[in-house]
Amino acid sequence: MALGTDYAHQDCSLARALEVVGQRWSLLIVRDAFYGVRRFNDFLEHLGIPRAVLMERLKALVAAGVLRRTAYQEAPRRYAYELTERGRELWLPIYALAQWGERNASDDAGPRTRFTHGDCDAPLDRRGVCTACGAVAEPDTVVMAPGSGAVWSLRTDAVSQALSTPHRLLEPLRTHPDGSSSAA
Amino acid sequence: MALGTDYAHQDCSLARALEVVGQRWSLLIVRDAFYGVRRFNDFLEHLGIPRAVLMERLKALVAAGVLRRTAYQEAPRRYAYELTERGRELWLPIYALAQWGERNASDDAGPRTRFTHGDCDAPLDRRGVCTACGAVAEPDTVVMAPGSGAVWSLRTDAVSQALSTPHRLLEPLRTHPDGSSSAA
Repeated sequence: MALGTDYAHQDCSLARALEVVGQRWSLLIVRDAFYGVRRFNDFLEHLGIPRAVLMERLKALVAAGVLRRTAYQEAPRRYAYELTERGRELWLPIYALAQWGERNASDDAGPRTRFTHGDCDAPLDRRGVCTACGAVAEPDTVVMAPGSGAVWSLRTDAVSQALSTPHRLLEPLRTHPDGSSSAA
Repeated sequence: MALGTDYAHQDCSLARALEVVGQRWSLLIVRDAFYGVRRFNDFLEHLGIPRAVLMERLKALVAAGVLRRTAYQEAPRRYAYELTERGRELWLPIYALAQWGERNASDDAGPRTRFTHGDCDAPLDRRGVCTACGAVAEPDTVVMAPGSGAVWSLRTDAVSQALSTPHRLLEPLRTHPDGSSSAA
């Protein structure tokens, strides 16, 4: 695997992980992929970053085997991005870091996002374990919904709008007027 | 709390967390603090980064309430840094990300670091749960030791040398010839 050398002298697996996902925006792109964002323009609009930065980050995540790129349209050719198995394994670090942010770096408006175990409709604990059945909730069993501190509704982009109702992780977000899924 | 605005339009707790610990080197500084590094010069030598970068990152982590700074010597005044309760709560995200790196971004030399539950002498699973007793292993109960893929021994700085034998997380590393702890 092509690895950067941002932390060349740090022979530790955390440094290795950060070489893959530690660049600015990379973890937020992976987060969006968990949310079901697939299309380039949806990432672009939701993240609000320069097109060149997004292209560079997506390319690096594909090269590292975190995302897989598939063409979903010819003329003009357009690509969708989805998480590989290796990418899906980033769920716990991302969830754990978001939960830390929720507890320690947020205001008091309440959680921005609620994550529940879809089968049980029960919240997850901070380790991503269902508080009802005790199972480790794999991301494709997790349902996200706006929490009491959510401000999604203040944003008008298609991804934010689609996320304003409960949504199962990894399922393609419906962000297009014709109702097609974003990876269709 | 003073927060940066790296991700100003991303109203999500992951973005909030990344504003605190997502800068280059920040998570590796926090990792070193879990390892028991306390003194400025030990961080400096172990991380091999420019002094000004380290100063800036430590200052930001103190401002964010992740690290606490205490003077351990006068004339010249010297400071030690240790994790606050808020900082200690970063154990799970850091551990989970390191485990992901271990599985997905390393060569086949075997784990660089082994983490065990000190009371049970049993390995932790990828969620930081003891595989023997089933308890969530709080960082101060975790013992780290070089794994089969470790190359600590190739490095000669005092921190790397001190980490070449089993060490309980959060206990000050003994990196000084007089045997004083690094926070003494």
